[in-house]
Amino acid sequence: MIVIPEHLVEKLFTAEAAFEAVEAVFAAMSRREAVNFPVVRDMIGHADAVYGIKSGFDRAGLALGLKAGGYWPGNAQKGLTNHQSAVLLFDADTGRPTAIVSGNHLTAMRTAAASAISIRHLARPDARVLGMVGAGHQAGFQMRAALAQRDFERIVAWNLHPEMLDRLAGVAAEEGVPFEAVELDRLGAEADVIVTITSSFAPILKRCHVRPGTHIAAMGTDTKGKQELDPALVAAARVFTDEVAQSASIGECQHAVAAGLISREDIGEIGAVVTGTRPGRQSADDITLFDGTGVALQDLAGAARVVELARGAGPLVTVDL
Amino acid sequence: MIVIPEHLVEKLFTAEAAFEAVEAVFAAMSRREAVNFPVVRDMIGHADAVYGIKSGFDRAGLALGLKAGGYWPGNAQKGLTNHQSAVLLFDADTGRPTAIVSGNHLTAMRTAAASAISIRHLARPDARVLGMVGAGHQAGFQMRAALAQRDFERIVAWNLHPEMLDRLAGVAAEEGVPFEAVELDRLGAEADVIVTITSSFAPILKRCHVRPGTHIAAMGTDTKGKQELDPALVAAARVFTDEVAQSASIGECQHAVAAGLISREDIGEIGAVVTGTRPGRQSADDITLFDGTGVALQDLAGAARVVELARGAGPLVTVDL
Repeated sequence: MIVIPEHLVEKLFTAEAAFEAVEAVFAAMSRREAVNFPVVRDMIGHADAVYGIKSGFDRAGLALGLKAGGYWPGNAQKGLTNHQSAVLLFDADTGRPTAIVSGNHLTAMRTAAASAISIRHLARPDARVLGMVGAGHQAGFQMRAALAQRDFERIVAWNLHPEMLDRLAGVAAEEGVPFEAVELDRLGAEADVIVTITSSFAPILKRCHVRPGTHIAAMGTDTKGKQELDPALVAAARVFTDEVAQSASIGECQHAVAAGLISREDIGEIGAVVTGTRPGRQSADDITLFDGTGVALQDLAGAARVVELARGAGPLVTVDL
Repeated sequence: MIVIPEHLVEKLFTAEAAFEAVEAVFAAMSRREAVNFPVVRDMIGHADAVYGIKSGFDRAGLALGLKAGGYWPGNAQKGLTNHQSAVLLFDADTGRPTAIVSGNHLTAMRTAAASAISIRHLARPDARVLGMVGAGHQAGFQMRAALAQRDFERIVAWNLHPEMLDRLAGVAAEEGVPFEAVELDRLGAEADVIVTITSSFAPILKRCHVRPGTHIAAMGTDTKGKQELDPALVAAARVFTDEVAQSASIGECQHAVAAGLISREDIGEIGAVVTGTRPGRQSADDITLFDGTGVALQDLAGAARVVELARGAGPLVTVDL
């Protein structure tokens, strides 16, 4: 069994590697060659932690396994990341564990890859202004991955606590792209692509904020009750997601579906757009929306890719189990 | 993170260690201090394999984690065990992975421990004849663990294919206990304790086979459709299990419950017998039945115990994640 620690994942798992791995598994999902198993998720009643397990199998890439971990809110005080996870991969031919891969950086990168894939396939080619909603740890990863998909000339950003945008401004400076903190009205009026990555439980972005032709990647909602967009905005958009069942139950679409504004049939799989079996954007004036809920197969595909890269990168830590 | 390979589990995880760990976690379950999360289980559509994940958290013992693996029927041809699994433990205070423990021997021992615990708490003290139904890989573990619970003087055994009983006879010889292959009628008429450990999908042991006073540990049924006992026998017994919800849905009791012969309320938790909050055997003539379905917490408690023993046993394989 191979052990891949966090620092090696950080070194090997580039945005390009994440993009390719996640795009391929989204395509496999839409061809029904890859399946996510039911999610386990529980407040464990200790340390205020939420613990969960996401698992699945990609018959095309032969990635079988799980990501386990969760959110420990007291970790930051101990100098640890609040989100902690590890991916365990199995040999699909024998059921033997083949690798354990640290999941923290992996999760950030595979999540950023999902919105980047949606931008690549759904945003207008002439998109030049990127709008960022949210300024947490994940926002920087999202922004970097988004910038690589179009010739973005500037960034407009909003956060509930604007003072937190400084860190994101620093990332933009590193990328050499002008960055401005703005109000939501201006963000919606100027951005061609908007990435929302908050932990909001009430709608932030409204129908009136968003121009025709905008692509929105709504990446923050992954639980019942969370919400970043007004359901009317969701209803006005051409909607895509990683997994329809999750989108309608715990993703951003949960609210528009519950309100009867859209049905599950209105939600397309991004993987079907990747494979060309479902049209993506159909006119320059479409508002396109990607509801990124996060699936096990992204983690497994990413971890399998990291293992592959690690095998080519020099001596590995291996242990006998 | 500590890595505990199969050979070290085999060395450290004695029947006594397994008994103590599993008995303690059954008690914690009945005090509602330990909970099993929903089971993930899927035919993956590759190599005829069944893959599954069992997980849970014991707030008393602070064991948090999962066992993942499954059944790969083609493994034996490759010189590997068909059942393959690994346990991943997490620090309940931080969510960081603490140990990966090979799960093959662990599973055999924790399963044997469950039936041994039922014998300790439910069989008549004067039980002298042990009946074994089944002769697969797990049967030897079951028999050894059972023999330690009472002053058994002899063993009577039955298997659908009697020629397969030779291996079990060998184990009995090692334990110094007379062993005889018999028909079911004689087995039921002579045995004071009966352990069933088959993968049967139709009832083997009938009401008419079993004498008053017998204790039965039905250990084979862990899936919808499997069955070892006639529902009339289940209905005639005082019934206990590791987890009531599992017993009534995928355990031996599924058939008697579905037939309306017993209700969930008739099924007691073995943990409550361990803690003394529920009576066990109430008369020498009771037929007692333990429906062992197998829960994640057995694996986690066992793995945590192995880690503890390994820490005391010398240098450990540790890796950084």
